[in-house]
Amino acid sequence: MTEQKATEQKAGQPEPSPQLDELYRGFEKELLVPLWTEIGDLMPTQPNPAAQPHVWRWDNLLPLAESAGRLVPVGRGGERRAIALANPGLGGAPYATPTLWAAIQYLGPREVAPEHRHSQNAFRFVVEGEGVWTVVNGDPVAMRRGDFLLTPGWHFHGHHNTADRPMAWLDGLDIPFVHHTGSAFFELGPDEVTDRSTPPKSRSERLWAHPGLRPLSALDSTQSSPIAAYRWEHTDAALTDQLALEDEGAPGVLEPGHAAIRYTNPTTGGDVLPTIRAEFHRLRPGAATATRREVGSAVWQVFTGQGTVRVGEREWPVERGDLFVVPSWQPLTLSTGGGLDLFRFSDTPIFERLGQGRVHVEDHS
Amino acid sequence: MTEQKATEQKAGQPEPSPQLDELYRGFEKELLVPLWTEIGDLMPTQPNPAAQPHVWRWDNLLPLAESAGRLVPVGRGGERRAIALANPGLGGAPYATPTLWAAIQYLGPREVAPEHRHSQNAFRFVVEGEGVWTVVNGDPVAMRRGDFLLTPGWHFHGHHNTADRPMAWLDGLDIPFVHHTGSAFFELGPDEVTDRSTPPKSRSERLWAHPGLRPLSALDSTQSSPIAAYRWEHTDAALTDQLALEDEGAPGVLEPGHAAIRYTNPTTGGDVLPTIRAEFHRLRPGAATATRREVGSAVWQVFTGQGTVRVGEREWPVERGDLFVVPSWQPLTLSTGGGLDLFRFSDTPIFERLGQGRVHVEDHS
Amino acid sequence: MTEQKATEQKAGQPEPSPQLDELYRGFEKELLVPLWTEIGDLMPTQPNPAAQPHVWRWDNLLPLAESAGRLVPVGRGGERRAIALANPGLGGAPYATPTLWAAIQYLGPREVAPEHRHSQNAFRFVVEGEGVWTVVNGDPVAMRRGDFLLTPGWHFHGHHNTADRPMAWLDGLDIPFVHHTGSAFFELGPDEVTDRSTPPKSRSERLWAHPGLRPLSALDSTQSSPIAAYRWEHTDAALTDQLALEDEGAPGVLEPGHAAIRYTNPTTGGDVLPTIRAEFHRLRPGAATATRREVGSAVWQVFTGQGTVRVGEREWPVERGDLFVVPSWQPLTLSTGGGLDLFRFSDTPIFERLGQGRVHVEDHS
Amino acid sequence: MTEQKATEQKAGQPEPSPQLDELYRGFEKELLVPLWTEIGDLMPTQPNPAAQPHVWRWDNLLPLAESAGRLVPVGRGGERRAIALANPGLGGAPYATPTLWAAIQYLGPREVAPEHRHSQNAFRFVVEGEGVWTVVNGDPVAMRRGDFLLTPGWHFHGHHNTADRPMAWLDGLDIPFVHHTGSAFFELGPDEVTDRSTPPKSRSERLWAHPGLRPLSALDSTQSSPIAAYRWEHTDAALTDQLALEDEGAPGVLEPGHAAIRYTNPTTGGDVLPTIRAEFHRLRPGAATATRREVGSAVWQVFTGQGTVRVGEREWPVERGDLFVVPSWQPLTLSTGGGLDLFRFSDTPIFERLGQGRVHVEDHS
Repeated sequence: MTEQKATEQKAGQPEPSPQLDELYRGFEKELLVPLWTEIGDLMPTQPNPAAQPHVWRWDNLLPLAESAGRLVPVGRGGERRAIALANPGLGGAPYATPTLWAAIQYLGPREVAPEHRHSQNAFRFVVEGEGVWTVVNGDPVAMRRGDFLLTPGWHFHGHHNTADRPMAWLDGLDIPFVHHTGSAFFELGPDEVTDRSTPPKSRSERLWAHPGLRPLSALDSTQSSPIAAYRWEHTDAALTDQLALEDEGAPGVLEPGHAAIRYTNPTTGGDVLPTIRAEFHRLRPGAATATRREVGSAVWQVFTGQGTVRVGEREWPVERGDLFVVPSWQPLTLSTGGGLDLFRFSDTPIFERLGQGRVHVEDHS
Repeated sequence: MTEQKATEQKAGQPEPSPQLDELYRGFEKELLVPLWTEIGDLMPTQPNPAAQPHVWRWDNLLPLAESAGRLVPVGRGGERRAIALANPGLGGAPYATPTLWAAIQYLGPREVAPEHRHSQNAFRFVVEGEGVWTVVNGDPVAMRRGDFLLTPGWHFHGHHNTADRPMAWLDGLDIPFVHHTGSAFFELGPDEVTDRSTPPKSRSERLWAHPGLRPLSALDSTQSSPIAAYRWEHTDAALTDQLALEDEGAPGVLEPGHAAIRYTNPTTGGDVLPTIRAEFHRLRPGAATATRREVGSAVWQVFTGQGTVRVGEREWPVERGDLFVVPSWQPLTLSTGGGLDLFRFSDTPIFERLGQGRVHVEDHS
Repeated sequence: MTEQKATEQKAGQPEPSPQLDELYRGFEKELLVPLWTEIGDLMPTQPNPAAQPHVWRWDNLLPLAESAGRLVPVGRGGERRAIALANPGLGGAPYATPTLWAAIQYLGPREVAPEHRHSQNAFRFVVEGEGVWTVVNGDPVAMRRGDFLLTPGWHFHGHHNTADRPMAWLDGLDIPFVHHTGSAFFELGPDEVTDRSTPPKSRSERLWAHPGLRPLSALDSTQSSPIAAYRWEHTDAALTDQLALEDEGAPGVLEPGHAAIRYTNPTTGGDVLPTIRAEFHRLRPGAATATRREVGSAVWQVFTGQGTVRVGEREWPVERGDLFVVPSWQPLTLSTGGGLDLFRFSDTPIFERLGQGRVHVEDHS
Repeated sequence: MTEQKATEQKAGQPEPSPQLDELYRGFEKELLVPLWTEIGDLMPTQPNPAAQPHVWRWDNLLPLAESAGRLVPVGRGGERRAIALANPGLGGAPYATPTLWAAIQYLGPREVAPEHRHSQNAFRFVVEGEGVWTVVNGDPVAMRRGDFLLTPGWHFHGHHNTADRPMAWLDGLDIPFVHHTGSAFFELGPDEVTDRSTPPKSRSERLWAHPGLRPLSALDSTQSSPIAAYRWEHTDAALTDQLALEDEGAPGVLEPGHAAIRYTNPTTGGDVLPTIRAEFHRLRPGAATATRREVGSAVWQVFTGQGTVRVGEREWPVERGDLFVVPSWQPLTLSTGGGLDLFRFSDTPIFERLGQGRVHVEDHS
């Protein structure tokens, strides 16, 4: 984008000349760049993201994480044994998309990841395993298969594995967005987690995870959800109910054969984090989604089942644990033979809050 | 307020004279009233509500409702066998407070209350019994002890009792507010309820009563909650959790020994209805609340236990089913020996939305 | 409404009997009222307000105010020489509508109305005259013909007339609403106004009345507008511009020949006061409005010109200074031969904020 | 950031070994990057932006723009003769900051820039000259010295110079933000501007630029301001008023000797564009600002006067037309001997809407 392509004359472009060369040298000297040579790249007719659709296979990720478990310590300095998806279109940076970080984090038996906090918003999603507690602002939160767990920005947090087996999970953050815009703050906390108790439910859930009920002791809205853990049993029940309603002919599913929930902040009804949307989708055996484009990028992880993902011209079979990226405005279609459960997160709240959201759903018929 | 009290001269009042009498006759003729004779009543230094604190005893209400069950049909025209609390300060009008309607509604075995809809917002709270389904916009909603059930404005609704026993419950509406401000609309629906099925859970609960989870098929905010029934088991669990957190030294209760939840709209985190707030309170054995004043009026119903209610200079013992009214800005204190569970509703959203809310909590110490 | 009309049997009503009489006596004793006898009045098919359409003539009001100026002192105790419109449907209470107070206030040469504050929201509109300054939270605000002036709730305010001539103006408040709902607070201030200076523009205007510009020293939103005075020259220019745009074929007017502006809070874009909407309307010579119904009540004052007002079945000619009331949901049509300028205020924000607003505009054709 | 720096062992880093090298090769092959080698760069203790503070001199920009005026056509294809500031820390990209585009645009006598629209939000600020009309969604808007003019996203717009002299001005857009996040849409319009009339005021101003007054024909809130032009006379008057209030001892200025206004959207009271904040600042002779840090980046342009700018460790004298950039969280201090007027724009709405805003003002004392 930064080379000045004055060699061939296009519509609206100046005629090459020594004077023009001198002008362009003047621009360079004064740290200036003309619009007329860059406009096609800067202002495309529709989003033309650098990020590419891509699939990472859980079967490849997990052995590498296990190997890192043997070779790489977890502790102060490195902070976390997290291994990030690096989108092939983003020059090797540890970015799943221009705004989103997605990593596999791995904690060996009895290991502890020390406490810290940062302005970046974070969550964890557990595709398999259990035994780790994440301690968020002093509240121990059990991590179990199917759970979606929040660490909103500027909350202290550390993890410890109480089990004799390692555990691996998906971390999602807005690190690339925060890095690009220059809004990152970070602070170290204690080397140990501040509460080693291992309750089955966090205090936050006991206060907040009762449907439609709020404690009178905490009535102000918060920009991030106060629910530290969205448990699998609730997610599964909600999806099961939607499909049962469909069977009864009642509204509920997003489209035929496709149940879906959004994780939300009970103090606002909106997204769980100001920059990140999180959802869970279930396709019945034999179902397929409409083809959908959306401004903003998303990362999906298969939770159970097998299916086919089509993003633009690319298509892959996917199965448990596989992660794939859908760049901005790329058409996405999902289908399955035997049924498919997927977790999804995206940067859509950024665009909605800034008035830039657009969605296009292709007509099925 | 409408008599012109010109007989005695007070500070800032005119001297009596024939000319003044003539002026006042001129006012009357032209449909005018001076401020200077009325200001003390119209603009008191603090709220001086006409409504009075009062208790209605469940043991007196229920036999009258049963008698009405024998004598008064339920059906088109009368619409509902509901008997309203008439605040002794409000001139015999069927108003618990200047804004709130509270009534005992009674449905005999196999009876049906026909469908209609109105702009008034309504809820039901069940202090005892079961067997009735209320059908709200075509969705059958079971009514059981401890449940809080919504009928937001302009939703069609009817009830039918499937049991061989009668059932009585508390109805709450904003009828007086809507009547006073002239904003009432009403429309008849079918004489029969539109769905006679008797599922244990309504469709609305199956879509909406999963903590922090929203269906992707219904993402817009609604001014009233889409949850038709807030079930007792969730309310009870939330209160139990708060008291257990207090035992562990963690935040959660509103004040020592006092757990409390607000029923909320999961699409906004705010009140369930635009004009009505609803809450449930639990006091531990031996607990007492701080003395609290609030702009706006409230109605409370004892769910279980026994206790003492003090409103201003009045004090009563209360027990299961008893209803009492707290007029605007009257100081309220609750206490109990053996423990007390209470349902509460109020018109507070009106004042908060119009920037008129005030709360004063007296210092305990 | 409070008599129990059991004598004739209507649809859904119980058959008269001694037992029924006894039941009704039981209700009375226990302070209860049945719904089935009251529902037609309480829940009409559309608003059936007690308030009536009515016109008060400026030519009648002004002489009475002048007479009060001779006979009634202004000062501590009576506080204000204000004479309120008493709607003929509201039992003699000083209420223009169930929610709105409208009064002519009169201040003689060199008189002072002492400072106080109250939770009621207030404004003034000046149909003629000048020379009075109202001092709002210490800021002197000149009052001149055509100006719309704010005194939001809980702002201290007093007035003083600097001229040798009396001045009369329109006061609008939410006194009836606040009185009915029991939310009134009042506090006396100094007997004298706190600043006797007489600047042509208030400090609030110098900070806030620049179009689209906000001071960086005051960036929080406020529930009431910080602009103390909306000057006639701006209102007139805005209306003139709308009609000129109409002449040019560009959008701008509300309907053909009908320009209209709403006074708004520059920190939110919404209404100037949480309970009161204020607008100014201009009809070209020969223009007529569509017939419009709206939930909520309004008071209009003619500023200049002559025209015809039709409210429901009533119709009156109106001219400068005349005040008329439009109760909730009554159809209103305005028309004029020679052109008509009108000020309007209403309680519509109450209904909009509580989700009860409705508007119906009849098709012209 | 993308090189894996495994050569030296730091705190929390793994010990180099052949196995570790193999692991890192495995990461590369699978498009993965570990957190532990990147965390210091990705998650700094405070914002560590790549963008640098820098000044561009108007005296250097203008001759280059004039030269471009001779050599580069304006028309379809190149679209605009705009020359963008390229921050020295951003690798030659035409970005003033990671989110903001700032360019000098130049239009020769009688030239026309053809119509198009794009999702990027744009504004213009005029430091000198006149004679150009920008036509925004068909509304011709005169551009004059001191004016701030809006072209919100997806509004068609073109420009034409009616004068015999060229005109240059500042363009500000969110191009880098939109490019980075992949949310750009673009569409061509007519080659000619759609309305060649040259009114002194746009239709949008005639509808919207009356202080606190809104047309009843357009009551919905819009995410961008409907005011196409904020005229210098209003800005100047607002600043003059603030300094006069300071002279009188009344509140108004931001800090001693420093008047400032924010351009706002009259339908919300908020920023004019969803991603861009715009302000105008005036320092009295001899004044200096407190030192201030803010999350997000800003571009300033001197309008009149002379002064000194200090950003972090850098300091420059500035004068009319000079542009300077303040990257995220860099401390800024402004001071002047003879008085200084400055225009400012920033990306702060992005951070405020996403809950990431922070401001730190150093104590003066």
